[in-house]
Amino acid sequence: MTNERPLILITNDDGVSAKGINELVACLREVGDLVVFAPDGPRSGMSSAITSLLPIQYSLLREEKGLTVYSCTGTPVDCVKLAMNEVLDRKPDLLVSGINHGGNMAICVNYSGTMGAVIEGCIFDVPSIGVSLLDHAPDADFSECCRLGRMLARRVLRDGLPHGTYLNLNVPKVAQVKGMRVCRQTDGRWIKEFKRSENASGKPVFWLTGSFESAQPIHPDNDMLALDSGYASLVPCKIDVTDYSYMERLKDYEC
Amino acid sequence: MTNERPLILITNDDGVSAKGINELVACLREVGDLVVFAPDGPRSGMSSAITSLLPIQYSLLREEKGLTVYSCTGTPVDCVKLAMNEVLDRKPDLLVSGINHGGNMAICVNYSGTMGAVIEGCIFDVPSIGVSLLDHAPDADFSECCRLGRMLARRVLRDGLPHGTYLNLNVPKVAQVKGMRVCRQTDGRWIKEFKRSENASGKPVFWLTGSFESAQPIHPDNDMLALDSGYASLVPCKIDVTDYSYMERLKDYEC
Repeated sequence: MTNERPLILITNDDGVSAKGINELVACLREVGDLVVFAPDGPRSGMSSAITSLLPIQYSLLREEKGLTVYSCTGTPVDCVKLAMNEVLDRKPDLLVSGINHGGNMAICVNYSGTMGAVIEGCIFDVPSIGVSLLDHAPDADFSECCRLGRMLARRVLRDGLPHGTYLNLNVPKVAQVKGMRVCRQTDGRWIKEFKRSENASGKPVFWLTGSFESAQPIHPDNDMLALDSGYASLVPCKIDVTDYSYMERLKDYEC
Repeated sequence: MTNERPLILITNDDGVSAKGINELVACLREVGDLVVFAPDGPRSGMSSAITSLLPIQYSLLREEKGLTVYSCTGTPVDCVKLAMNEVLDRKPDLLVSGINHGGNMAICVNYSGTMGAVIEGCIFDVPSIGVSLLDHAPDADFSECCRLGRMLARRVLRDGLPHGTYLNLNVPKVAQVKGMRVCRQTDGRWIKEFKRSENASGKPVFWLTGSFESAQPIHPDNDMLALDSGYASLVPCKIDVTDYSYMERLKDYEC
């Protein structure tokens, strides 16, 4: 046992100035010592992208008792890598990424920079949680999200997580969340994904947009179903994406 | 049954001019009609990143019987999304991403733009394969990789793949590959990830580098073990990252 307060690494993909990460900091200060190491601006949709062709830099923004804040020019995954390799003097007890302005349920876990950082924390064997609110507004109300995120942070600090498993918490945009349900990732995809426009020369350009379409049938454990019903969804996810059930069938392909 | 030749969508993360994608095109021409829709330059390490804050564009580079080539300003995933939503007049029978200059075994599947495109194809329910050679050289010898990639493309066109499952083929840098083994993703992570340098003002900057460290113990089915032994590795992977084995344990957290 150590007398040290838990060390919590905090990052996000909306950038260090976003309301979501600052609300998260405020609500986790009583839980442990916090190091914020977050992108210097928006990095939404960056997934687990890494910066390999250019160098990255970081700056100390603020330092006070129990809280140190850095910004970094890289992606969310770059932030975690740089903090872990070069900045932190000990391994964090927990990583929390968010609070994201917008949901990361269903297949969003694949595109999300918030969740990219969580996956990276998990690869470093740090218990890692992503927290997202289904509200893109810059001034969204994060109070329910903070309450649940703090509760989850405390539990994960107490219990840990298995090697290779991370958590994805999503909170619906409602005044009072009904509760938190353990869910599976909803199967589906985006449709009608582009808005066509024109640049100054009249050449077509394409803006990403679209709406989510669930694959049928919906399973009762789906995260989107919980969220639609006013519950927060908690999905445990794995780093190992091997489809073990299909390995045997593929053996025919060996040569 | 249709009389049409199979339609194969080809993309990569090294860009439309890379040797790897052009060798892939040459070896798949006899298998089907090809549409290349690839980034206009290098996008290595882009994972499943999407471009959400800026518009993207594409250009037709070449059109001949059985082959159309486009370049796109976006990420590998943007390429797949734009091709599927706006450009192709029918759903492809197969997507092949690569041939990547460099391996995408083990945890690389998480960071790779090549594999990001494969995951995206799979989300669109197109049977999707990533092909990578463990050689970063711009003039690498892709002949063994082409032979195995073409064989695999033919088999997947014949058999299809289950909903939500995609394939990750890696080929070692050897004159003659011993064979192809069905494998699981090797567990591990990168260490010593940054080279510290200085910018013009003397401020520290960090370049991504590092070496891979396998987690112990190595399982006999590991993809890295097959590759180290001179075999190509074929890993079936899943879109659904839910850790089903941990859902029950997490039920205590419900509220």
